[in-house]
Amino acid sequence: MTALSPAQEVITAPWVRKDLLGLWELSAEEIRLVLQTASSFREVSERSIKKVPALRGKTVVNLFFEPSTRTRTSFELAAKRLSADIINITAQASSLSKGETVLDTIRNLEAFNVDILVIRHGSAGVPAAIARQSRASVVNAGDGSHEHPTQALLDMFTIMDKKGKIEGLNVSIIGDIAHSRVARSNVWGLTKLGAHVTLCGPPTLMPQHLDSWGARVTFDVEEAIQGADVLMLLRIQHERQEASLIPNLREYRLRYGLDATRLARAKPDVLVMHPGPINRGVELDSQVADGPNSVILEQVTNGLAVRMAVLYLVAGQQGKPAMPEER
Amino acid sequence: MTALSPAQEVITAPWVRKDLLGLWELSAEEIRLVLQTASSFREVSERSIKKVPALRGKTVVNLFFEPSTRTRTSFELAAKRLSADIINITAQASSLSKGETVLDTIRNLEAFNVDILVIRHGSAGVPAAIARQSRASVVNAGDGSHEHPTQALLDMFTIMDKKGKIEGLNVSIIGDIAHSRVARSNVWGLTKLGAHVTLCGPPTLMPQHLDSWGARVTFDVEEAIQGADVLMLLRIQHERQEASLIPNLREYRLRYGLDATRLARAKPDVLVMHPGPINRGVELDSQVADGPNSVILEQVTNGLAVRMAVLYLVAGQQGKPAMPEER
Amino acid sequence: MTALSPAQEVITAPWVRKDLLGLWELSAEEIRLVLQTASSFREVSERSIKKVPALRGKTVVNLFFEPSTRTRTSFELAAKRLSADIINITAQASSLSKGETVLDTIRNLEAFNVDILVIRHGSAGVPAAIARQSRASVVNAGDGSHEHPTQALLDMFTIMDKKGKIEGLNVSIIGDIAHSRVARSNVWGLTKLGAHVTLCGPPTLMPQHLDSWGARVTFDVEEAIQGADVLMLLRIQHERQEASLIPNLREYRLRYGLDATRLARAKPDVLVMHPGPINRGVELDSQVADGPNSVILEQVTNGLAVRMAVLYLVAGQQGKPAMPEER
Repeated sequence: MTALSPAQEVITAPWVRKDLLGLWELSAEEIRLVLQTASSFREVSERSIKKVPALRGKTVVNLFFEPSTRTRTSFELAAKRLSADIINITAQASSLSKGETVLDTIRNLEAFNVDILVIRHGSAGVPAAIARQSRASVVNAGDGSHEHPTQALLDMFTIMDKKGKIEGLNVSIIGDIAHSRVARSNVWGLTKLGAHVTLCGPPTLMPQHLDSWGARVTFDVEEAIQGADVLMLLRIQHERQEASLIPNLREYRLRYGLDATRLARAKPDVLVMHPGPINRGVELDSQVADGPNSVILEQVTNGLAVRMAVLYLVAGQQGKPAMPEER
Repeated sequence: MTALSPAQEVITAPWVRKDLLGLWELSAEEIRLVLQTASSFREVSERSIKKVPALRGKTVVNLFFEPSTRTRTSFELAAKRLSADIINITAQASSLSKGETVLDTIRNLEAFNVDILVIRHGSAGVPAAIARQSRASVVNAGDGSHEHPTQALLDMFTIMDKKGKIEGLNVSIIGDIAHSRVARSNVWGLTKLGAHVTLCGPPTLMPQHLDSWGARVTFDVEEAIQGADVLMLLRIQHERQEASLIPNLREYRLRYGLDATRLARAKPDVLVMHPGPINRGVELDSQVADGPNSVILEQVTNGLAVRMAVLYLVAGQQGKPAMPEER
Repeated sequence: MTALSPAQEVITAPWVRKDLLGLWELSAEEIRLVLQTASSFREVSERSIKKVPALRGKTVVNLFFEPSTRTRTSFELAAKRLSADIINITAQASSLSKGETVLDTIRNLEAFNVDILVIRHGSAGVPAAIARQSRASVVNAGDGSHEHPTQALLDMFTIMDKKGKIEGLNVSIIGDIAHSRVARSNVWGLTKLGAHVTLCGPPTLMPQHLDSWGARVTFDVEEAIQGADVLMLLRIQHERQEASLIPNLREYRLRYGLDATRLARAKPDVLVMHPGPINRGVELDSQVADGPNSVILEQVTNGLAVRMAVLYLVAGQQGKPAMPEER
């Protein structure tokens, strides 16, 4: 990816954080440093031998209190391609079912001298609470409706890769804004890098106090599409229908789904993004998901590179792993 | 294993397939190339250091839509002994439970630049459909009642190892032929290498249109045993009884089970084989399963070598991994 | 850990056992050899690169018929830091659910040329029965109420590390002695190294025939605390209450739980130990569990070192893995 390096000044400030908890607390420069590091790691996964010794002898734990194949696998592969040892622990399988507290679980893992805890949890703030108590680095892999920082970083990486910049772009995020950690992390990150963010969804799925988010708000999807450089569709959870927050999926599709007709009214070079897994025919039609504007699969590829970069950077705060050879 | 090399001409044609989907489409020469490659890998598992760097930096995914410890473990060990990175994904744990399509799952894995997908699925043809859509190599680890090619290859490897040849041998496959992917793959493979195959089972467990299979058919187990060089027993699934395809397991044993009395009427050097897991006392008595004619555990050992060979050969079609040192 | 080496004579007798099944059958010298080996491995987990090539190319299988995250993870990390390949198999996922016998499962794993089977099972004696049938080394990771040898070894390692010796110390084990494999293994091991062991718990949770154990018995927790150098609290299982062996958890706490008031009557330098996971507020108050006398997290750290030592020693009985560099 050549787009990042020349378009941006080279980042010289070093990474100093033990943890990656959210984009809320990162500076624009820190975000750029992650993206730049990811850029050099993306090339690793394109080699015939997809492995660097950067984190050899380090231990990463995937600690998932909510099920996820996609994010868990991405972190697992990222760790393996950095030559780290990785252990997967899911809440059901853990001692938590024997009544142990989360903090006891963490202290035990720490006693194994693990280096990085990748944590997904259904409640906002759990990774941050753990990070404060733990010598190990904590990477937030999604906490409740709060943040999902590596998802937003891979989204920004993809936009930067495709558009050569983020500053000044119009990015519309469409869907269940109220319950989306992906939306929150993207708003904080994109805004810091100078994008103009529009949030769009049915009133029942929009959070309160939106005026503090620094984003434009609309309930009209046509308005969100108009003039956008990036359309970011969010997954509609079936449980929202059960909770009567949306009338039904067919109605949602009619009002907010992105199909070819709506896409035709967007800029010709608009990027269509989705954090996956897609509900085809609900928030996104297959024709669009698989069409020329879609960069959904590149998001997945870039996600691996971003996670390698994040693991690499936070690990550097507890010892000095070797840099990948090409840097 | 010295039996293979001198008994066969050396195969010089290279492997050209991205995928291993079934034995139906392989030529006799391709089958011999897999067996010959497996022969050199079997020795790796007998060393003190059971590992070669052949697939270092490659990523293998075990994608199992049906549970299986045995085959999954065999592929997992094969990948690890080739120094590949391996990820296990089971259907329950995957995003499929969130309503994602199989194809979306595959495209996501592909976006991670995985090299090989080892796929087990309850429906015939799914691995082939995926292979057509995917840059990654696909190895069929069993699809419905269709094929289970690595099982048949390990069976052929074991016969070749023990008998020095396959051509001209009489191989009887006894049991639930109708629902067995093991039977199908073995019939296609053994026939191509010149064996005479006999299929035997109760009429309710024999498929229709058997005349196109190129095998002899009998409902009389004594006829199948008589003169056979190899007796391949298939596992009786309990659900067949529930579906009233067999009267009960005791009756099945009386009519088709292999016990010491029946074995006494076979050739003294007959090989007794079973793909496992065995229903002891149903299709096979313990005295026979654990007796001197049984090569059941050697099948397991050889299965690992065959899977190493298959992973190695298909991976070679997407880059050039180093050959194991002894070749 | 310098305490071990100078305090003890250097062990020169080599390890000769294929398996580690229990402390009942080990000599004092064999126990000391494990502790001494663990001492050199503990340092590995404190390095920046937490990995030695000692078991490269060896295959370890975690075969757990009872769920356990804690012990399973400890063995998994131990194997990985020794550079071994490790496969996790749980009973639910295994072919056992297809009706295969345990012995068939073991024979199949053996046919893969695995080197070490780490086995946890709900019934006493299963690991020993498997060890007799298997070429592979067997490490007992807990069998019913029988033994949990690596837990006792890590307990002894921790005592030795903190107190510089075991001989002559007063160790009180408090809780559900009747059902505890941890208690049994510790009694055999500690007694062999010359400690004076006191067993304490409600009469309903004390086994019969205690006179043969070589330990003092008391039902009075104050008596157990008085003069003890080590207090080892056992976990109270909720199912004991359901079985009416204890009146209720609150009552248990009042009579046998260790809180700050009781601890104040113990020696000032008493060690507080617990095998985990802790029922906070039942057998152990948080103030004590997290207080200055507690070495509970060091037990976890030492457990990893002890398991590395055990895997290393038994693996040496089937080939000669390289010694870690520092020895």
